[in-house]
Amino acid sequence: MITVLFAAPALWDEYRDPLPQALKSAGLRAQVVLEAAPETVDYIVYAPSAPLQDFRPFTRAKAVLSLWAGVERIVGNPTLTQPLCRMVDPSLTEGMVEWVVGHALRHHLGMDAHIVNPSHAWVPDPAPLARHRPVTVLGLGALGTACAQALAALNFPVTGWSRSPKSVPGLRCLSGPEGLRAALTGAQIVVTLLPRTPETENTLNAETLALPARGAVILNPGRGPLIDDDALLAALDQGQIGHATLDVFRVEPLPQDHPFWAHPKVTVTPHIAADTRADSASGVIAENIRRAESGAALLHRVDRALGY
Amino acid sequence: MITVLFAAPALWDEYRDPLPQALKSAGLRAQVVLEAAPETVDYIVYAPSAPLQDFRPFTRAKAVLSLWAGVERIVGNPTLTQPLCRMVDPSLTEGMVEWVVGHALRHHLGMDAHIVNPSHAWVPDPAPLARHRPVTVLGLGALGTACAQALAALNFPVTGWSRSPKSVPGLRCLSGPEGLRAALTGAQIVVTLLPRTPETENTLNAETLALPARGAVILNPGRGPLIDDDALLAALDQGQIGHATLDVFRVEPLPQDHPFWAHPKVTVTPHIAADTRADSASGVIAENIRRAESGAALLHRVDRALGY
Repeated sequence: MITVLFAAPALWDEYRDPLPQALKSAGLRAQVVLEAAPETVDYIVYAPSAPLQDFRPFTRAKAVLSLWAGVERIVGNPTLTQPLCRMVDPSLTEGMVEWVVGHALRHHLGMDAHIVNPSHAWVPDPAPLARHRPVTVLGLGALGTACAQALAALNFPVTGWSRSPKSVPGLRCLSGPEGLRAALTGAQIVVTLLPRTPETENTLNAETLALPARGAVILNPGRGPLIDDDALLAALDQGQIGHATLDVFRVEPLPQDHPFWAHPKVTVTPHIAADTRADSASGVIAENIRRAESGAALLHRVDRALGY
Repeated sequence: MITVLFAAPALWDEYRDPLPQALKSAGLRAQVVLEAAPETVDYIVYAPSAPLQDFRPFTRAKAVLSLWAGVERIVGNPTLTQPLCRMVDPSLTEGMVEWVVGHALRHHLGMDAHIVNPSHAWVPDPAPLARHRPVTVLGLGALGTACAQALAALNFPVTGWSRSPKSVPGLRCLSGPEGLRAALTGAQIVVTLLPRTPETENTLNAETLALPARGAVILNPGRGPLIDDDALLAALDQGQIGHATLDVFRVEPLPQDHPFWAHPKVTVTPHIAADTRADSASGVIAENIRRAESGAALLHRVDRALGY
C-alpha cells in the first residue's frame, strides 16, 4: 500500500474524489491521507498554501509532486532533498492558450472601443490583419510554446524567446540576453510566460519596455515579478506602452490601493488564465507515482539549479 | 487591349494603383477606366454602391466581378445576363476569422467583466475550458468553414450547419431544416455566416432563438437580415440570449435611435469583421479576368437560382 500525503488541505474538497480515482485507474494500490507519520509517507502532493515547510522527517518519500506549475516558493527550501516535480497539466495549457489568444485578439481588434462606446460612434476602422501584427512570447516552456503556436496559427508573426536556444516550427526563436533585445524590438504585443527565477525578475523594466513598438500591449499571465510595476506604469503614462492586461501580481489578490486597479490602460484579471483542474491534475500526479514505482524517470522534474 | 470598367467610383482611390498593377502582374494588357462606351467594355468591376443598374448596354462584357462577398443587391437585377462572380478574398477570410475567434473567446472568457470593473472586484472565476463550450456556425461557405475550423483548433466543439449537406473535417456537420434545429439546440455561442437570400432572412427568430442554451451568445458578422431584430431584443430581455455582438445591420450605419445601441447586452461593431482589402481583392479580380481570357472557368461564379 502506497501512502500519499495530500499536503494542500485547502484543496482537499477538489481532490478528495478525483485523486484516489486517478491512482486506482493507474493500477496503484494507494491511500491518500491528510495526515500521517512522516516516516510512513511515500509521496507528498504539495501546493504553495501548504503548511508543510520542513521536509526532513519524510525519510521515505520518493518525490514531492507540486499541484502548481510555478515552484518558486518551494524550490529554494533547504530541507527539500527529495525530487520535486512541477505540474504540467494539459488543461492548464488549454486554459492559458485561450486567455492569451483571447486577449491578444481583443487588443488586436481594438474591441474595448466597441464594448464601451457611450457616444454610439460608428467608425469603421478595421484592424490590420494579424499577419501584420508582430507578437513576441517570452518563455518557450510548455505554456509559452503552446501559446506561441496558437498565435502563429492565426497568422500573427510570432517571435519566441527563451533563456537557452530552442527551435519551434513556425516561430522565430531567439535566446540569450542579446536575443531578448531583438525579440522585444518592434513587437506590438508582448506575452510574458517565463518561470519565476532570480534571473527573470523584472525582465520587463524601464530599459526593455522601451524596445517594443510605441503603443504596444503587454499581456502577463506568467508571474507578477517578471515586470517592474513602476516602470510599466511610467511606460503606460508616457504612451510607450498602450495597454497592459495582467493576470498575476506580486501580491494577490491585487491590493485595492494598487495603481493598476484604477489605471485606464490596465486590465486586471484575477489569476484565472491557467487554472489547474483537479481531474486532469490528478491524472498527472498518478502517472508520476506509477512511473516512480516502476523505476521510470519522473516527468516534469525540477532542476534545482535552474529553479524550474 | 482589355477594357475594365471600374463601376465603384467611391472606391477608386483604393483601387487606382493596385488593380492596374495586379492586371499587369497577371500578364494582361488591360486598361482600367471609370467611364467608357458600354459596348467597348470587356469586364465590369462592381460594388453595391455603384450607380450602375442597367447592364443591358454592356453587350460585350464577359463578366461582372463583385468587390463584395455578398451579392444580394445585384443578383436579382433582371438586366444582368452576364456571369456574376462574388469576391472571395483570402484577406477577407483572415479578417473574419480574427473577428469571430476574438469575440468568441471574449465571451467565453467573460472578458467584459474585467475590462469594465469599477468596483475593482477580484473574483477568480475561471471559464470552463473551450472543449466544454459548444459553438454552432450557421453557414459553411468559405468564411463559415474557416471560422469553424479555427474555433475547432482551439478545442471548441463546433457544429456547422449548411443548407445542403457538407462534410468538413473536425466539425459536426448538419444540414436542412431539421438539422438547423439540432445545430442550434444547446449551443452556447452561435455564429451567423449565411449568405443573404430570401430563404435565410430571419434565420434567427423567436422560435429558433429559443433553442440555444440559456444565456447563449450570438455573433453576427454575416448579414443583418439573418436575425429578426425584435425577436433578438425580446430574447435578450428574457435572458434566453445572454449577449449579442453584431457587426452587420439591416440599415448601416446603425441608426442612432436603434435600440441595439443602448442595450446593455448588445455590442455593436461597425461592419469591420471582414474588410475587402484592395491589394488582395485586385489580385482576385485579375486572376478571374486572366481565366476568362484563357477560356478557363470563372472562380466564385454566382448561381443565380441559389442567389450566392
